[in-house]
Amino acid sequence: MLWFDCDYNKGCADEIMERISAMNDERYIGYGEDEICEKAAEKIRQAVGLPDAYVKFLVGGTQTNLVAITASLRLTEGVIAAKTGHIYVHECGAIEHAGHKVIDLPSHNGKLDPEEVAEYMKHFYADSTYPHMVKPAMVYISHPTEYGSLYTKDELKRLHEICETYKMKLYVDGARLGYALGAKNCDVTLKTLGEYTDMFYIGGTKMGALFGEALVIKDKTLLPDFFSIMKQSGAVLAKGWLLGAQFDVLFTDGLYEKIGRRAVELALTMKKGFIEKGYRTYMDSETNQQFFIIEKKKLPELEKNVSFSAWEDFDDDNKIVRFATSFATTSSDVEELLKLI
Amino acid sequence: MLWFDCDYNKGCADEIMERISAMNDERYIGYGEDEICEKAAEKIRQAVGLPDAYVKFLVGGTQTNLVAITASLRLTEGVIAAKTGHIYVHECGAIEHAGHKVIDLPSHNGKLDPEEVAEYMKHFYADSTYPHMVKPAMVYISHPTEYGSLYTKDELKRLHEICETYKMKLYVDGARLGYALGAKNCDVTLKTLGEYTDMFYIGGTKMGALFGEALVIKDKTLLPDFFSIMKQSGAVLAKGWLLGAQFDVLFTDGLYEKIGRRAVELALTMKKGFIEKGYRTYMDSETNQQFFIIEKKKLPELEKNVSFSAWEDFDDDNKIVRFATSFATTSSDVEELLKLI
Amino acid sequence: MLWFDCDYNKGCADEIMERISAMNDERYIGYGEDEICEKAAEKIRQAVGLPDAYVKFLVGGTQTNLVAITASLRLTEGVIAAKTGHIYVHECGAIEHAGHKVIDLPSHNGKLDPEEVAEYMKHFYADSTYPHMVKPAMVYISHPTEYGSLYTKDELKRLHEICETYKMKLYVDGARLGYALGAKNCDVTLKTLGEYTDMFYIGGTKMGALFGEALVIKDKTLLPDFFSIMKQSGAVLAKGWLLGAQFDVLFTDGLYEKIGRRAVELALTMKKGFIEKGYRTYMDSETNQQFFIIEKKKLPELEKNVSFSAWEDFDDDNKIVRFATSFATTSSDVEELLKLI
Amino acid sequence: MLWFDCDYNKGCADEIMERISAMNDERYIGYGEDEICEKAAEKIRQAVGLPDAYVKFLVGGTQTNLVAITASLRLTEGVIAAKTGHIYVHECGAIEHAGHKVIDLPSHNGKLDPEEVAEYMKHFYADSTYPHMVKPAMVYISHPTEYGSLYTKDELKRLHEICETYKMKLYVDGARLGYALGAKNCDVTLKTLGEYTDMFYIGGTKMGALFGEALVIKDKTLLPDFFSIMKQSGAVLAKGWLLGAQFDVLFTDGLYEKIGRRAVELALTMKKGFIEKGYRTYMDSETNQQFFIIEKKKLPELEKNVSFSAWEDFDDDNKIVRFATSFATTSSDVEELLKLI
Repeated sequence: MLWFDCDYNKGCADEIMERISAMNDERYIGYGEDEICEKAAEKIRQAVGLPDAYVKFLVGGTQTNLVAITASLRLTEGVIAAKTGHIYVHECGAIEHAGHKVIDLPSHNGKLDPEEVAEYMKHFYADSTYPHMVKPAMVYISHPTEYGSLYTKDELKRLHEICETYKMKLYVDGARLGYALGAKNCDVTLKTLGEYTDMFYIGGTKMGALFGEALVIKDKTLLPDFFSIMKQSGAVLAKGWLLGAQFDVLFTDGLYEKIGRRAVELALTMKKGFIEKGYRTYMDSETNQQFFIIEKKKLPELEKNVSFSAWEDFDDDNKIVRFATSFATTSSDVEELLKLI
Repeated sequence: MLWFDCDYNKGCADEIMERISAMNDERYIGYGEDEICEKAAEKIRQAVGLPDAYVKFLVGGTQTNLVAITASLRLTEGVIAAKTGHIYVHECGAIEHAGHKVIDLPSHNGKLDPEEVAEYMKHFYADSTYPHMVKPAMVYISHPTEYGSLYTKDELKRLHEICETYKMKLYVDGARLGYALGAKNCDVTLKTLGEYTDMFYIGGTKMGALFGEALVIKDKTLLPDFFSIMKQSGAVLAKGWLLGAQFDVLFTDGLYEKIGRRAVELALTMKKGFIEKGYRTYMDSETNQQFFIIEKKKLPELEKNVSFSAWEDFDDDNKIVRFATSFATTSSDVEELLKLI
Repeated sequence: MLWFDCDYNKGCADEIMERISAMNDERYIGYGEDEICEKAAEKIRQAVGLPDAYVKFLVGGTQTNLVAITASLRLTEGVIAAKTGHIYVHECGAIEHAGHKVIDLPSHNGKLDPEEVAEYMKHFYADSTYPHMVKPAMVYISHPTEYGSLYTKDELKRLHEICETYKMKLYVDGARLGYALGAKNCDVTLKTLGEYTDMFYIGGTKMGALFGEALVIKDKTLLPDFFSIMKQSGAVLAKGWLLGAQFDVLFTDGLYEKIGRRAVELALTMKKGFIEKGYRTYMDSETNQQFFIIEKKKLPELEKNVSFSAWEDFDDDNKIVRFATSFATTSSDVEELLKLI
Repeated sequence: MLWFDCDYNKGCADEIMERISAMNDERYIGYGEDEICEKAAEKIRQAVGLPDAYVKFLVGGTQTNLVAITASLRLTEGVIAAKTGHIYVHECGAIEHAGHKVIDLPSHNGKLDPEEVAEYMKHFYADSTYPHMVKPAMVYISHPTEYGSLYTKDELKRLHEICETYKMKLYVDGARLGYALGAKNCDVTLKTLGEYTDMFYIGGTKMGALFGEALVIKDKTLLPDFFSIMKQSGAVLAKGWLLGAQFDVLFTDGLYEKIGRRAVELALTMKKGFIEKGYRTYMDSETNQQFFIIEKKKLPELEKNVSFSAWEDFDDDNKIVRFATSFATTSSDVEELLKLI
């Protein structure tokens, strides 16, 4: 079976497994207060160009979004997101459950249009009834988006500017951040995120870790009670060093970017192969997730040997299908796949 | 000054003030457990054709929506509403604050299109990732809507049918219900609501009461802990008989419908007058709220003598303006207004 | 029937009913933005000696506690209260439902002992695991308490001092505040509350209003989004002027204190009468609520003519019974009661 | 350094690390839907004697308590716990943050007294104001407790009986369950828990897993939306098979009990050693946590070589100190410790 269904279907990169095995005889202080977490945090602070940032490790993406966003909002504040944003669609209403509206704006291949955000805010404060409405206090974007698309540095800068104007925070869900960093034409670096956003997380789970996400909060004084908020949400891992160690490995010798680059190269090879065989892409992704339009009648045969994700119908006869590469994909996986299609 | 800004700018109908004055020397049991509340509830049960319904009186509309909706939903369930619905726009995220997503569908003059609800539900359960998504468990409509439009009996029936298919509750926000009942071509009666919905409230505040809304829950066993939930939300009025008495008056000798009918007649006279003077309506409302397109440059003069509500821009030169009649509007108010425009 | 069951079993003081009747033909701006609310707020600001305070009118006590407390706390913060405090016992978990722990300390006749609060805080921060615990950020007291007892000025001052030390807010639930102000030996005035607390509310519902509580927030910059928070909790009354008018009347010609004083005098006459007839008091209340120990076998006869509140058992043969006077109690009520016991 | 500070200061049992390493090349379906989770669940179902139980794996204890408890309660319901219970003290108000009061009853060496629960419930429903109060709908106990003490089968049975009488669920926090199962005089087995409780979790994190807790819900129809609730709380691990695999190992060849038994034996040897050297125990624990009274002046010297937990002061000169054994403790650790004291 060839596995292209998602980027979290295998344990972890070998380097990480070795590290976790090797440290199994050691003793550590719990709750992420250990020295390995601190070391990994320091590496991340350097990488993002924020020597004073507050860095915390959490177990998963929904959890990280939930804790980071709700810790940042006052009671009547909400967060703007694209209608396709993960927090809007696929986290079972975690943000709303925690008390905050997710204000949806149109999705353009998974992205928010900064000018539409600006327009929304202009109208919001122009409406004299706004004290009866949820106040937008944060903008959420995912990068890469759920559709594999990427923001440019200019777009990020513009969103930052709009957020400053309207006193909103800019938050980036980087569940697949490494696949953005590994994309050829992406001018958004870790330092760009450090410069133009208020908070973002560097995804581990989908980037070769067993689990784990690294949350970076630019202003370390922003959330003095953040540990307690994590604890209250059940988001503190007792053996926190397991998280620190994984990010320590990922941020050693550029492993994080290396994993991203490799997976993206394989994804582009795959895309090229599909196109050469006459398939259309549903949208032009430059990252590890590729969306093709495939005849429904072809799918059952393909499913026998390949695991992939069928998304919605494109039309009566065709489906949009996602093939994802990851840290675990090999060149031969892609070659075999291209033979099968 | 002529008051057409809204339908809650004056105390109450004279009949209600007389009643409240007259009963001021009496003593009652608190928290709505008195006999006047029971008497009013019984009148409402008769009027809606549900002799076994559970009827509770609350103070305001946002409060009623908040308590009724959140009492009905499980943790991961949400409520579908039109993007212009009051709970979506103008209640400061009360439903989300209480933990539940409001799932917005397009607004058609303030209304949900039943077929779009059906379509949404079909797609929802067709998506295999739906356990990661907020489950629609209720449909919220307002009748009349925030734009004065009305659902037909057939539309209500169809929504009811869809709700049955997908095990959702149908809830009607009747903040201005009397102005629907008083509309000429409205085939939705109190008994229709009793038949096709699961819960609805009969608005008092905007219909001539000092304050108060009567919530009707069809299945009295549905929410056995409803009193406690009200209490927990600060929604139990200590001197509950004040609510019961007002609804007792409104449901005596058809006062509720009478108020609605009169206000709608005045609204239609007003509409006719505006049209005769060459104004365009923004949308064709049959109820007490009328929306006209007025040149912006005319507004300052008008504002000197008339109180009205400027809504959004229609275009660069024109504004959408709402004029509302109510239990408090007189024929001479309308005549004078028509002279001024 | 003689009514001593509670202090909210009758509509309102005649002065208030006259005012509400008289203003029924006027038109006002909604949501408490009217000039009557502002006038009443100004009278209250003068009375409490805080010319810059933020004053808002809400409908009921649970609602006021809920909104004021939850608006003030961060996610992991809680509020200290006596185990007999209204928010701990009788508001159906409103504070917890809104996300915050009520931390109970022992009740001494309904009161917190300031030194026990100090002790709790000392231990809290001495425990190195405190980031895993709910952080006390507010102290809640009721004055008079649920048992009719009163704090002294010195106790209030001491609580204020402790709160300053540990960066906590001091909040006073004044549901029956007028009955404290009317007590003979109470050295806590409205100005004392203004000086030593951060927030408190002046109760109306139990003091002769139809409904309504006036919340006073010392630092008006503390909660810039307070109106929105009220709205979100369904706590904004559409016809807000009804609240303003009632407090305007209560704070005209000292009516509020007058009502309190009269009711307390009648309560003390009642207490004297009970004692002279050989009854024991359960605790020595100086306010409008009096608690007596009465043989269970005597109660059925008494219940035929008097409405009162049976509290818990004192022992197998005796019950603790509460008799409350109020704005509505007359001298002859008390005389007749004393004949019956 | 000798590590006796807690039972979660080392990665995992060797058997578990081997398994996780060995499976690192395999591919699995995400979110716990894989076959290893199902296999582990089935082993647990057999072990607890509930062939139809619903078993889910979560990452940590606070998370498990939070999700399990809040999924089970209606809006105005609360959970009874001992004042020393983990959910009451050390989870930063997670349950309250999710909207529910934790109703504290006295702690007897960490345990609830069943008769005090019965008494509380009797009084609760005898109080006619109970609809204004949080309704106890669940009883939470930890076994072993936070103080290492154990419930007897008879106590569990009695709690079960009381819960049935008052329609409450009985929930057991088994963070350290294996150390109870390994205690000599403990007559509560996994099957006892299956028989007398409604939900409980089998702790992994403190029992030799890297992380993970197995929640057992007796009635699988109770919480049909449990997966979604987990997701909403950020409690679904993407690579869920990591949890399943760990519990599969723990429930193979009796490893779980073996780990518990060994640690308890070492703890009892340690206790014996302390007593022989003249130390007093603070309370008589039969499990892996032992509490001794130690002179404060002795602690600095001891801290140089031993890691332990200083709890509260016993008196001015003495401290209560906890020494915990775990899956990671060796006989020589204990021997060396006893030499040092």
